[in-house]
Amino acid sequence: MAHQAPAKAGRPGPDPRERTADRALRQRAAAVIPGGMYGHQSAGRLPPEYPQFMRSGRGARIWDADGNSYVDLMCSYGPIVLGHQHPKVEAAARSQAAQADCQNGPAPVMVELAELLVATVRHADWAMLAKNGTDATTMCCTIARAQTGRKRILVARGAYHGAAPWCTPRLAGTTPEDRANLGYYTFNDLDSVRAAAAEAGDVLAGIVVSPFKHDAGFDQELVDPAFARGLRDLCDATGAALILDDVRCGFRLHLGSSWEPIGVDPDLSAWSKAIAALREEGAIEAMERAGTALRDGIVGQAAAWGLEVSYTGPVQIPYLTFAGDRDHALASVFAAAAVRRGAFIHPRHNWFVSAAMTAADIDVVLSATDDAFGAVRKHLATD
Amino acid sequence: MAHQAPAKAGRPGPDPRERTADRALRQRAAAVIPGGMYGHQSAGRLPPEYPQFMRSGRGARIWDADGNSYVDLMCSYGPIVLGHQHPKVEAAARSQAAQADCQNGPAPVMVELAELLVATVRHADWAMLAKNGTDATTMCCTIARAQTGRKRILVARGAYHGAAPWCTPRLAGTTPEDRANLGYYTFNDLDSVRAAAAEAGDVLAGIVVSPFKHDAGFDQELVDPAFARGLRDLCDATGAALILDDVRCGFRLHLGSSWEPIGVDPDLSAWSKAIAALREEGAIEAMERAGTALRDGIVGQAAAWGLEVSYTGPVQIPYLTFAGDRDHALASVFAAAAVRRGAFIHPRHNWFVSAAMTAADIDVVLSATDDAFGAVRKHLATD
Repeated sequence: MAHQAPAKAGRPGPDPRERTADRALRQRAAAVIPGGMYGHQSAGRLPPEYPQFMRSGRGARIWDADGNSYVDLMCSYGPIVLGHQHPKVEAAARSQAAQADCQNGPAPVMVELAELLVATVRHADWAMLAKNGTDATTMCCTIARAQTGRKRILVARGAYHGAAPWCTPRLAGTTPEDRANLGYYTFNDLDSVRAAAAEAGDVLAGIVVSPFKHDAGFDQELVDPAFARGLRDLCDATGAALILDDVRCGFRLHLGSSWEPIGVDPDLSAWSKAIAALREEGAIEAMERAGTALRDGIVGQAAAWGLEVSYTGPVQIPYLTFAGDRDHALASVFAAAAVRRGAFIHPRHNWFVSAAMTAADIDVVLSATDDAFGAVRKHLATD
Repeated sequence: MAHQAPAKAGRPGPDPRERTADRALRQRAAAVIPGGMYGHQSAGRLPPEYPQFMRSGRGARIWDADGNSYVDLMCSYGPIVLGHQHPKVEAAARSQAAQADCQNGPAPVMVELAELLVATVRHADWAMLAKNGTDATTMCCTIARAQTGRKRILVARGAYHGAAPWCTPRLAGTTPEDRANLGYYTFNDLDSVRAAAAEAGDVLAGIVVSPFKHDAGFDQELVDPAFARGLRDLCDATGAALILDDVRCGFRLHLGSSWEPIGVDPDLSAWSKAIAALREEGAIEAMERAGTALRDGIVGQAAAWGLEVSYTGPVQIPYLTFAGDRDHALASVFAAAAVRRGAFIHPRHNWFVSAAMTAADIDVVLSATDDAFGAVRKHLATD
């Protein structure tokens, strides 16, 4: 397939970045870690331009094991919300660590945190703390089952709710019984939920839903408020628990549950990634501002390069796809070129904008993405 | 039931310890945390002498929210192995935290840790890291199933392998399907394992076993080496994976898998609590010395008070029961009195000895336990 030559030349060239330390670490890791690395932190399925090992971070900048720097648009897959090494967050952590990190009982700060969460999240009466998002979503399902005395949990087809056998997208080592009590619906399709609920009948324990559709590798889709209200009504009518999986979005879109702006409160919600000193920093607004500047810049660049893209999701948690991009081939060319130019994005997973992004950081990203669009143009021309 | 008056008077008296801050925190917690606190850190099912909230720790000493001090014989249910706030451990943690805590990829130190684990544990070829012991045991089962293509996992009746729906001892909110692929055997009873394996037939994926029997609330039981060898042979014959749950014992009994001294290597092992700078500190030996001094002292005191007790398990992970003690009534009297005198033990869960125990710490514990035996004698006399 032939394409017109780009009006503006991409400058990918050979990778200017040093990779010696990363290569050596990958070799050592291959000997003692399955696959050299596993899970979502594995760079094995990413273009070779990606570093596997990261050394440090400050604000929105991160450095890999070789000392190459990037503007961070993945934010450790979510948890970094005020930026790396935020002085107030680090000081609080150091102060508590100097007292105790792990004891026979919780520290008094646990009560303060629970009080803050309950005061901040409108639907929350109680807070429980866990070690990761999977534990939080699993606990929500367990509580819904214990409370209702029923078994069936509905989830959206293709949604990610964690890495336990009942929900992991990788089926190796799981059993059919792990999912025997799940039912499936289609996000934003209330009829499909009603059908799954009708099929469950009097064993319906709960419905798990993400604030918006953010299935890895696909265009993102905001929730239809009527869909959210329909779920709430259905749960009220059946006595099932409405469970909002706010692990990825919580406190990045709104200082409260991500469905508070549309007026729908769940019975249970799972949180994980972004819990920090958000209010006093005006962090939500800062992420919105930076995210909007990035969206406007990137969408404008795509148009200038004559490339058809979708830039979807909230501006704080965006994702870019190319029209007709089978197997994420163009996304991989784009991401590899962006990483070479110092913008750490991902070809198949949505991105995260932190509140630490400065105007200079945004310039670095937009310069990198402009080059990256050029690389895509060049790829199409020579394909 | 009448008993002879004690030869030696216990001095429990009214609790001399300040509880103001703990009481206030419990009240606040009850408003925002289910049950005021949940899980194994809840003091709700412990005698009222126990604090719920802990503030700090140094070495083998810990302080509660009111500033009362204790010698720590629970070690945060295991993770504290070199003592609280060990200077080398804290310096290493501070140094890494100043670089990064959570990034898009692992830090180079992950490779160093994996190399150290593989070099230290004889049967280990690879290391994977997780967030808690439940994740580790669950991953072992998943890997065994993926590798064998089979479903059934055998576990010992009453054994604790974590808090996920497939293994939690609390059944609320779990479903029969969560355990549909489990089979059960009796610890140290090879015939019962053979029967469960025969019943599983060609769907046997793995056998999970603890290094010794440490079911909460019961006398502990060391493993019969012939039993361990029998499990190894059975797994070799059937192609099932032998999975050692070393979460509680790993690196507390031996600098390697807890079954290395008896010459039995598992295929997979789960670790969690005690991973630190053990070799250079001679920590295993230090825990053995302190644990032996405690055992000898406590067993001698029980005899002097004319009380029949069982002090079971390895000296580093001991547990004390009273003969004929229904519902742990005497254990609760004993533990409450010990806690009042500054020895933090548990009436229904095994204890953990850290390498930080000094002679002065041991004196505090033995003085407290002597009083506590006196309290038990008094309780029996007035019962």
